[in-house]
Amino acid sequence: MTRYRDSGVPAHERVADLLSRMTVDEKAAQMMCVWQKKAETLVDEHGAFSADKARAAFADGNGIGQVGRPSDAGGSGHEPEKGRGPRQMAELTNAIQKFFIEESRLGIPVIFHEECLHGLAAVGSTSFPQPIALASTWNPELVESLYAMTAHEARVRGTHQALTPVVDVARDARWGRVEETFGEDPHLVSRMGVAAVRGFQGDASFQDGTRVLATMKHFVAHGQPEAGMNCAPVNVSMRELREVFLPPFEAAIREGGAASVMASYNEVDGVPSHASEWLLRDVLRQEWGFEGFVVSDYYAIWELNDRPDTHGHWVAADKREACALAVRAGVNIEFPEPDCYLHLAELVADGTLSEAQLDDMVAPMLLWKFRMGLFDDPYVDPAEAERVVGSEENRKLAHQAACESITLLKNDGVLPLDAAKLSTIAVVGPNAGRALLGGYSGVPPRTVSVLDGIRARAGESVEVLYAEGCKITVGGSWNEDAVVASDPKQDRKQIAEAVEIAALADVIIVAVGENEQTSREAWSRAHMGDRTSLDLVGRQQELVDAMIATGKPVIVLLFNGRPLALPAIKEHAPAILECWYLGQETGHAVAEILFGDADPSGRLPISFPRSVGHLPVFYNHKPSARRGYLWDDASPLWAFGEGIGYTTFSIDNVRLDDAEIGIDGTTRVLADVTNTGDRAGTQTVQMYVRDRVSSVTRPVKELKGFRRVTLQPGQTETVQIPIGPEQLAFWDVRMNRVVEPGEFEIRVGASSRDADLQTVVLRVTG
Amino acid sequence: MTRYRDSGVPAHERVADLLSRMTVDEKAAQMMCVWQKKAETLVDEHGAFSADKARAAFADGNGIGQVGRPSDAGGSGHEPEKGRGPRQMAELTNAIQKFFIEESRLGIPVIFHEECLHGLAAVGSTSFPQPIALASTWNPELVESLYAMTAHEARVRGTHQALTPVVDVARDARWGRVEETFGEDPHLVSRMGVAAVRGFQGDASFQDGTRVLATMKHFVAHGQPEAGMNCAPVNVSMRELREVFLPPFEAAIREGGAASVMASYNEVDGVPSHASEWLLRDVLRQEWGFEGFVVSDYYAIWELNDRPDTHGHWVAADKREACALAVRAGVNIEFPEPDCYLHLAELVADGTLSEAQLDDMVAPMLLWKFRMGLFDDPYVDPAEAERVVGSEENRKLAHQAACESITLLKNDGVLPLDAAKLSTIAVVGPNAGRALLGGYSGVPPRTVSVLDGIRARAGESVEVLYAEGCKITVGGSWNEDAVVASDPKQDRKQIAEAVEIAALADVIIVAVGENEQTSREAWSRAHMGDRTSLDLVGRQQELVDAMIATGKPVIVLLFNGRPLALPAIKEHAPAILECWYLGQETGHAVAEILFGDADPSGRLPISFPRSVGHLPVFYNHKPSARRGYLWDDASPLWAFGEGIGYTTFSIDNVRLDDAEIGIDGTTRVLADVTNTGDRAGTQTVQMYVRDRVSSVTRPVKELKGFRRVTLQPGQTETVQIPIGPEQLAFWDVRMNRVVEPGEFEIRVGASSRDADLQTVVLRVTG
Repeated sequence: MTRYRDSGVPAHERVADLLSRMTVDEKAAQMMCVWQKKAETLVDEHGAFSADKARAAFADGNGIGQVGRPSDAGGSGHEPEKGRGPRQMAELTNAIQKFFIEESRLGIPVIFHEECLHGLAAVGSTSFPQPIALASTWNPELVESLYAMTAHEARVRGTHQALTPVVDVARDARWGRVEETFGEDPHLVSRMGVAAVRGFQGDASFQDGTRVLATMKHFVAHGQPEAGMNCAPVNVSMRELREVFLPPFEAAIREGGAASVMASYNEVDGVPSHASEWLLRDVLRQEWGFEGFVVSDYYAIWELNDRPDTHGHWVAADKREACALAVRAGVNIEFPEPDCYLHLAELVADGTLSEAQLDDMVAPMLLWKFRMGLFDDPYVDPAEAERVVGSEENRKLAHQAACESITLLKNDGVLPLDAAKLSTIAVVGPNAGRALLGGYSGVPPRTVSVLDGIRARAGESVEVLYAEGCKITVGGSWNEDAVVASDPKQDRKQIAEAVEIAALADVIIVAVGENEQTSREAWSRAHMGDRTSLDLVGRQQELVDAMIATGKPVIVLLFNGRPLALPAIKEHAPAILECWYLGQETGHAVAEILFGDADPSGRLPISFPRSVGHLPVFYNHKPSARRGYLWDDASPLWAFGEGIGYTTFSIDNVRLDDAEIGIDGTTRVLADVTNTGDRAGTQTVQMYVRDRVSSVTRPVKELKGFRRVTLQPGQTETVQIPIGPEQLAFWDVRMNRVVEPGEFEIRVGASSRDADLQTVVLRVTG
Repeated sequence: MTRYRDSGVPAHERVADLLSRMTVDEKAAQMMCVWQKKAETLVDEHGAFSADKARAAFADGNGIGQVGRPSDAGGSGHEPEKGRGPRQMAELTNAIQKFFIEESRLGIPVIFHEECLHGLAAVGSTSFPQPIALASTWNPELVESLYAMTAHEARVRGTHQALTPVVDVARDARWGRVEETFGEDPHLVSRMGVAAVRGFQGDASFQDGTRVLATMKHFVAHGQPEAGMNCAPVNVSMRELREVFLPPFEAAIREGGAASVMASYNEVDGVPSHASEWLLRDVLRQEWGFEGFVVSDYYAIWELNDRPDTHGHWVAADKREACALAVRAGVNIEFPEPDCYLHLAELVADGTLSEAQLDDMVAPMLLWKFRMGLFDDPYVDPAEAERVVGSEENRKLAHQAACESITLLKNDGVLPLDAAKLSTIAVVGPNAGRALLGGYSGVPPRTVSVLDGIRARAGESVEVLYAEGCKITVGGSWNEDAVVASDPKQDRKQIAEAVEIAALADVIIVAVGENEQTSREAWSRAHMGDRTSLDLVGRQQELVDAMIATGKPVIVLLFNGRPLALPAIKEHAPAILECWYLGQETGHAVAEILFGDADPSGRLPISFPRSVGHLPVFYNHKPSARRGYLWDDASPLWAFGEGIGYTTFSIDNVRLDDAEIGIDGTTRVLADVTNTGDRAGTQTVQMYVRDRVSSVTRPVKELKGFRRVTLQPGQTETVQIPIGPEQLAFWDVRMNRVVEPGEFEIRVGASSRDADLQTVVLRVTG
């Protein structure tokens, strides 16, 4: 047995042995990927593996590094509904894998990658809430569990690498990908990112066949695109990168051991990420000790030159130059198709690149193939795939996550509903009749709409009336380029119908917001998802106004991918629940919260602006920001960390273990949390830090810790949150990370609002 | 005679001699300023010099460095209307100067500083258009002339230093100080900034008593405040600073020899400008060789700590620390009152600062006092002040500047008006009945409203009807903190009145926009001027709509301090003129343009967005920006450089002297401009450059030269614009300024729009 095939040999040695046997062309092949469906090189017209096609396409026997999206089927767009189910996909991945193992010269297995943003984006997989909703849970343990479940559902079908999690810090609500993020705060995003990586990778031993490689993306600063347009330049300083955008990546690598990173489409300060040696080598590999591999975003290496669909960066004159730039920067593999990296062998041949540079890129990818056991146990069990994917256990977790995501923003006492006291409920609104899944979704085994959920929960004794009320868009698939606005006349007719049924009801539940067409990734110049307004689209505000005008209790359910500007709804609606996109169990979770079977425990992971003209509105601003506007309020409509429940809490006796510590010292802040109401509930105690005087300006507050506690009525728990260099340090004027002696405000409370915070002062001595 | 008093001794030697005689307290005094009015230490209750008060206040005989705003009188706010006229001010400055020369130990004269944004901001001085209007002229020679005139008007009253020009690059239309800038483009701002400095300082010999020191402000990047709020943090990279915000300062120092720089309130990347050694020492003094002095913005050193009215930066624990930081950074003098710098002597005594550090700060200020002849000829002639200020010659220049500022944005053929064919003109709108001067204005000898100007020009045979139409605000002084919105009901009544007179007219001229309350410097938390909307304030859009609904020809005159978002006006109004604020001669200039006595020649110095949700919209963006929005257009409503006239032009035969040059080489682009219409007119030929492929991403186009040519019908002129390293260089990844070999697109035409540009390719060889 050749050494690299021997599973008894340590993985690093297997890599070295294998590399020593590889030709330049074989190395280049490992740095490329085929998009299973799009290349049409691997499957026949029925979507089954075609050995004839594969043999023709890969006749050179060099193999390939990865195969993208084996769940995909159908045409050239994203059409998950036409994709493969668990068994079909497992069979396909097995067949493709077998082909490359048996019919390439060295038998190197491929990695199959898939999107797993909130569940595997494939037919049959469990659909969890979108990340912006998951972040609202402030529950990293839950997030770890559900990404572990996602990993399991993905792995049993043959997936090895999830192109997830997104740990971008979202700072512009116009951007259509806000929903894919964990919000605006570096600390919360870091905690969720680490949890996601642990969920995907576990301990990274990959022994039990339930885990996949996690891919941190988009590296870096993708969440603050100029003018809110996807992939636009990010003009931030080195310090802001260090303070805001890099920390989630660093945490997920240092704490979570993330195996892969995807470079971002955008440039940062004039340097596109795919060409940034500073980013991908100096910071990622040298400074953080990253031993994984960097994947390109789809077609992003091409965009170093120009890509007609999108606009390129023009730092390369052609694909050949783009190839050289990306390799030098440290992009290990090109996604999704062989394109710029087709020039690899030629660039080695002419001396532009050295073979050693290719070895550096190939080695870590081979290492993870060995670590994942792909050389030793490359196949999956289609029967197990059918058993695991979309199981009842997984459904329950999707339900729990949806419940915990829901954030109560206002309640004048109308909630929770008591089914025994109601005879008729009107459920209206364009988002009442369907469960919204958000971008990068698959086709879950079932979905439960708000209407379904309420009908199921309200029971026979309550009449549930329904009217759509108006439309958001005509159509609704995120795949379509053209987004058709609803017709005002038709909408107003529908509003009149809604008013009619509302007149018959005791309470009105109105579900409005956005859909997967108005909030989505703008992936080309034809396919838009970024907006210039944060108002409700179409006639939805009119619909809400009409419901409120009935004088009956109105509960507004918001389903949306980004913060919207809703001052009128805040002022006039008696109750408001932010739901984001809750996944397949939407309706059951909403009903459970509406009827008080569970206490709403979500907290906002992002600030809500009063209008699009207020952007940016992130809470962790500098003291000289937010001075005010003429005739307007510079504060957010709803602040980061806000959210209430059906019970009440007190936070008392906020205290430090030590009033004074050294610059390397640690201590804890403690606080007694009491459920002062008459229902069980969950409070999330948040700790913010402010360095009172510092050599470089510091934010007025920064989240540095939180604890989620569930308490029975009258119950008290003491929460403890650690404080140390991690919580107190910043990047000084010479870009050293330091703790400076002086006073720090340690602020503890129920949200980021000053009114919700109590302050103790910690003295740090030099 | 002591050596420093001897005018025959070179200035540098006089400085050295004087410094050697000064105590620490005397040096500290030179680093401080008194606000003549506010300190109430120099004048009596009638505003006349009070020797008794002065002797009490300056009993130590240490003198003072500067006296601020001798034109001011009255209460604690800015009340120019209560200020001193030319004679009165000249007498006061003479008296104060005499006191300090005769009653301080070393007899060091003071510098009097004043605001000169668009004319001396004082009673009686000529009021020119606001800088955003001046920038619209694209006429640096004119700008130099009018700032020379401003300098003369200021100098004869006793002023030595103008706190002007503002060379901030304005990149957020929400910001209330856009009107004080020369717009969004570094090149245009640089050209105007250099012109202004040359106007103020001449050759800096100060021999003829007509020039003053120029102060470049606000150093640096004040024009891109976070969320559009004045003084908010500026989060830009080093490269963006170098490419966008620093160039106007560098040009005005290197080419114009500006004597003074004012540091900006804002922080850049966490470092407040007043505490930035990198900015004020490394860049300004070391790199650019600046030999002048840096003044603080009003109370900005205090803001290094905290200032209740505004919010501070908290990089200093108190005023004492703020003092030390500012001196170390290199702020020579604190404005407007002795405050933090009161700690100077104490900081020297305790060794925190050295006396040599004070010498470094004092010396350049003494040098300019010697250079200006203040030791030798310290007084002014009140009779000359009366003669010069507000003279007829100056009025004519104000008129010319106003004419050249007006920018025709749309003309469906209704313009120019022919008085002989009209019997009745309706002049309506809240900005028709008064001349708007903008922020930092004085009280000019006269103002001419649009109504006045049209009445005067139309003559006896034309009836001119007037209605206010609606209000923008109730009140209107920029000094008032509270800005009272107009009453909708009252507005609608006024609109009805306007409709009545419109019904009687052949043509309707409607003057709308903003006023000095809705666009202004937000100088405290109580005094706002930044907006979250760029729509017309109040019922102005309704007024315009009502005028258009009459079906008669409507000419919209825009008076505003910032770009507004006016898509409906662009679509429906037959003719639109952007006037900004035109100064005292508003009405005459407008009438001259309306009736075709002059050809409108203004070009926009800043892009107009379609809505506030489109910000930022600057034209010189990177190729990956502006991909598009869902249901909206990412292009500007009106582009940078746009503007039309009453005649037409062709630009032909765009060509290079050399198709290929070396990296240090120079060449020229030439183009033949022909007036193809039947009226005389002015075309501004603009040259934009794009580096096709570069190691760091480069803007899609950047203005690098322009020529303003006035031609008779049928006349052709060949314009020549130089190209060389200045036009082709950029800051590479290692922050070196380089020209890279390759192809450059040289784009020549009538605006920044692609449709208006012709391209020739220049090859640069390595």
